[in-house]
Order: sequence, then structure tokens, then C-alpha cells
Amino acid sequence: MGQVVQIGETRDANARLKPILDLVAEDMAGVNRIILDKAISDVELIPRLAHHLIDSGGKRLRPMLTIASAKLVGAKGDGPIRMAAAVEFMHTATLLHDDVVDESDIRRGKKTARILWGNQASVLVGDFLLGQAFRMMVDVGSLPGLKILSHAAAVIAEGEVMQLAAAKNMATTEDAYLAIINAKTAALFSAAAEVSPALIDRPAEEQAALKSYGRNLGIAFQLIDDALDYAGDSERLGKSVGDDFREGKITLPVILAFRRGSDADRDFWRRALVEGESDDGNLAHAISLIRRHGTIDATLERARTYGAMAKDALAIFPDSVPRRALLDVVDFCVSRAH
Amino acid sequence: MGQVVQIGETRDANARLKPILDLVAEDMAGVNRIILDKAISDVELIPRLAHHLIDSGGKRLRPMLTIASAKLVGAKGDGPIRMAAAVEFMHTATLLHDDVVDESDIRRGKKTARILWGNQASVLVGDFLLGQAFRMMVDVGSLPGLKILSHAAAVIAEGEVMQLAAAKNMATTEDAYLAIINAKTAALFSAAAEVSPALIDRPAEEQAALKSYGRNLGIAFQLIDDALDYAGDSERLGKSVGDDFREGKITLPVILAFRRGSDADRDFWRRALVEGESDDGNLAHAISLIRRHGTIDATLERARTYGAMAKDALAIFPDSVPRRALLDVVDFCVSRAH
Repeated sequence: MGQVVQIGETRDANARLKPILDLVAEDMAGVNRIILDKAISDVELIPRLAHHLIDSGGKRLRPMLTIASAKLVGAKGDGPIRMAAAVEFMHTATLLHDDVVDESDIRRGKKTARILWGNQASVLVGDFLLGQAFRMMVDVGSLPGLKILSHAAAVIAEGEVMQLAAAKNMATTEDAYLAIINAKTAALFSAAAEVSPALIDRPAEEQAALKSYGRNLGIAFQLIDDALDYAGDSERLGKSVGDDFREGKITLPVILAFRRGSDADRDFWRRALVEGESDDGNLAHAISLIRRHGTIDATLERARTYGAMAKDALAIFPDSVPRRALLDVVDFCVSRAH
Repeated sequence: MGQVVQIGETRDANARLKPILDLVAEDMAGVNRIILDKAISDVELIPRLAHHLIDSGGKRLRPMLTIASAKLVGAKGDGPIRMAAAVEFMHTATLLHDDVVDESDIRRGKKTARILWGNQASVLVGDFLLGQAFRMMVDVGSLPGLKILSHAAAVIAEGEVMQLAAAKNMATTEDAYLAIINAKTAALFSAAAEVSPALIDRPAEEQAALKSYGRNLGIAFQLIDDALDYAGDSERLGKSVGDDFREGKITLPVILAFRRGSDADRDFWRRALVEGESDDGNLAHAISLIRRHGTIDATLERARTYGAMAKDALAIFPDSVPRRALLDVVDFCVSRAH
């Protein structure tokens, strides 16, 4: 895939993650200890399958948001650490189920759990991790925190069903797409950022600000993810360019290329995504249409707008190390290459 | 399947359910209203798929236990009603995922959701219902109640993974089988019965008694279920005799027939359950071996023992209408035909 559109600024992306990494390092060690502890089960298959994903080098962006926002609002103790671990478990459970639903073979450069242990085990271990996530939250004992995360759990699943219903449906509009990524991705970012102020009952405007930060960051994150699926570098991404194409997922680069294109283009998109003619030749043609209509740039532009909204949401907080770290996360997300 | 072993006392079974049905009728109307209300979503596929299962005429035994135990210990208000609805949602979510994992075609006499809407939608709507269950529990606001049910959620999934790992494994012992049904079935019966006293902070011995009642009742229930899979009447059960056989599930009637049989019998069981030679001729032979070794009777005998333990667990409570209704549920479970 040498002639894909390259997304710029990738060199800077990782530097933008350093401030939050430094800020949360000590607490994330605690999060990681809890994650290892709660993935334990006498049922041997559970830790084996769970560790496959846990150890596979995800960035743990969501729990980092919980820890960093705790620091922003002054939430101390191990409440945020345990909520952060629960957030990561919810995310891991979602990934396991997603890979089953999407029939994915590769995640983070490794074979997916469903390829190694089967769809059945992936569904059930996902359920186990979700159960463990709720147990951890209950142990923290904050009803406002539980409310935020249990709501997110239902909304995420709703978003996944919406996505399933929209698959192979060329009538999907940009609005419908936004509703999907809002639910399937942004709901957890939002909950992860909002839960820490809720634990210590901070004023409603701080909670609302962090909720809005997380929501807009999550949308930006997913927009970039969907752009990378047509413009990324497979090796660095640890996932294959064209996955969404082969699965018939209707993402923004496609929605815009379909709308901006000719009748012949629209016929092509229908054949490729609805009827499943998604071989490499057609993927190359899809990428050429996406380039011609500049829909990667348009997607990135939307991502930058949501990123700006995420940053503005934090404007009510005075300048501080945690605030700067959270602002840098936005820049990381809109300029990331992996 | 004319020559299957008939399980006795089936005529009386439904009469034994009448006392609890009368006791909980009014509150169960409330439970059913909440169930309908919480299965709503703007994502059209969700209520459609959820209702397929919700409307299919399950007995709602688990939420009835929550309501009846609330009456036993004097827990009033809508807390038990909402927890009961959450219990039923947890159960429904488990059924959706189970049917995917077991590749089942029929449930309660109807095509399964996965046959009608696919495995993907079944996994995701199950996740949605589990999320909604947690939201309902959080709304009740009882941390002890949340603790009991979130623990059950993790244990149920653990039990399902254990069952998956034990499938087609003739080395499975009666102990391993008991550990599986304890987790996958009895954990929810137990939580359903225990949660009401926890809501109003009743003395530990009452909570422990109802927990023990639920656990032993759940084990008895599953033992009977597994016996019916080789001895039931398909039409009345709404499920096919031989499902467990075809799925290679190692249940007690098989464990005992394997152990009590000859070397030739054991070869047969390995061919049938491990290698999957599970055609109708082999099912008939399996049933004949089960009859010869009396393993349905042995399974029923175990079920009666667990049923007796469930009844004894309630001995600390003075005689009352709710107590008598809960005792009759035990008799229903060990003598039920559907």
C-alpha cells in the first residue's frame, strides 16, 4: 500500500503523549496491578485469553484520562485508580466482542483472541471482564461513579448495534455515522473523564466540562481511526489498512466519497461495500476515490474541530500540569499514527 | 422419541408453582412493566430482538425468587421490583450469549434470536441488556445489592467458560460438573434470592439462608434440566431432546453412564461426544445406555437432595405464606416437566 494518503504530523504525536504519561505513571502502575489481579480466575482459559489482549500493548488511553482528570480536580486515594482499571476492563471486554462481531483476525499486530481460542471463548471472557469491571466499581462504592459507567456500558452496546445495522447501508448519513461513533467510542472516553470528579462530588460544571472533553476527544479519536483505515501504515498501526472496507463499514471517508462522487463512483461503492466486492484491486480504487475527493482531509478537519471543542471544554479550569497534559492528549489523538 | 425415560410427577409440577405465582402476581406486573420499559431503544433492532426473547413465555422464576424473598423478609417498596427486573435482564443477556456459544437453533419452542438476527446482533443486544441491568441496579442505589449481583455476573461468565472448556472432555468428573452448574446456573438463583434481604440490611443469617436456598435450588434446577435433555418430551419442553448430546456437553446423566458402563460403552461415548458422531441412531443408543445404568434416576436423586438442602435452608424462618411458596418452588423444580 505504498500510495496511500499519508497523515501528517505523525512524528510529533508521541511527544504529545509524554506529559500525561509522566503525570499518571505512578497511578497507572497501580491500575496495571489491579488489572493483573482481576484477570485472575481458577478457570485457566480466562487469564490466558484475557492476558493475550491485556499484554498486547494497548496505550491505556481511557484509564489515563480517569487518572489525569482525578489529578485535575484533586480526587485522591485509590478510588480513581480502581475506576480506571474498571474502565480498561470495559474497553477490553468491548474489544473481545467487537472482534467476534467484525470477524477480525488481527488486533494490535497479533492474532485476535477469537482466532486463537474461538468466538465462543471470546464472547464469554468478554462477559467475565465486564462482570469484573462492575465488581471493581461496586467496591469503590460511589453510586454517582457507578451511574456514569453503567450508563456508558449500555450506550456502547447500543452504538455497536447501530453500527451493525448501518453496515453495508450506503444510505448512512454523516449524522448517523456521528451518532454511532458518539455511542460506540465517545461514550467511554466521556465516562472515563467524567467519573473522577463524580467520585468526590465536584461542582456540576467541572463534571460537565470533563464529560464534554471526553466526548469530543472520543469523536476526534474515532474519526482519526476511521481515516487511518484508508490512509494508515499497516505495520505501524498493527492493523490492516482496508479492514473497514472489507467489513462493509460505512465510515466518514466513504460517506463523503460516496456523496461527492459520480454515479459511476456510487455504483462502485455499492458493489464494493454492499455486495462485498472488496478485493485488493477494489481497495486500491477506493483509496484513489477517497484521495480524489479529499475525504481523508475532510475527516481530519472534522477531527480537528472536535479536538478544538475538547480543548475548549477544559477552559474553565485554571492552567495546571494535569490540564496541559489533557490538552496535549487531544493533539496526540488528532496527529497520531498509531 | 417414544421410548425415552419419563420423569414422574409432572402433573403435580405446575400446581406447585401456584402459591408463588399468587404471592408475586402484583409485584411481577411491576417487574414486567420495567422490563418492557428498559428494553426500549432508539436503535430499532434492540427492542425487536429483546422482545423476541422477553415475550417468548419464560417462567421468570428468578425474578419471582427476588420478589418472594422480599415478602419473606419484609422488604417493601419498589427496590425488590427493580432488582427483580435487573435479574431477569441478566438472565436474558446470558441466554442470548449462550445460544451463540452453543449454536442453538431453538429456544422455548421458537427460533433463537441468533437464527433470526444473527450471532453478531445477539452478542451485542446481550451486552446492551447487561448494561441496562446494571443501570437499573444502580438506580435502586443499594451497594450491598449491587455487590451481590455484580459478583454473580462475573461468576456466571466464569461458569460458562468452564463449561466450554469441559465440552467434549470425557475426563470431566461429577465434581467438575457440579462446579460448572454452581457457577453458570446456581449463582444467579442464589443472588436473586439473597438480594432482597440485602436491600434492607436484614440479619446476616437471613441473607445466608436465602443465598443457600437459591444456590441449592439452582443446582437442583440444572440437574433436572440436564436430565430432561435425555428424558424429556420435546414438544412440551420447547427444546429438543438431545441438544446437550449434539453439542458434546458432558452432563451428569452422561458422566455417570460413562463411568458405570463397559469399555465398549466408553468407546461409544467418546465417539459420540468427543468426535461428534451424534446422529439420531447414536442418540437413541445413548438414551438406552442412560436407561440401562439408571443415570436419569441417579440425577433426579441428586436433584432431590439439593432440593432438600434448599428447603432446610429456609427452616430458620417461621411458617408464613412466602416461606410456603418458596418451599413449593423447590417441589416444582424437582418435578417439573417444562
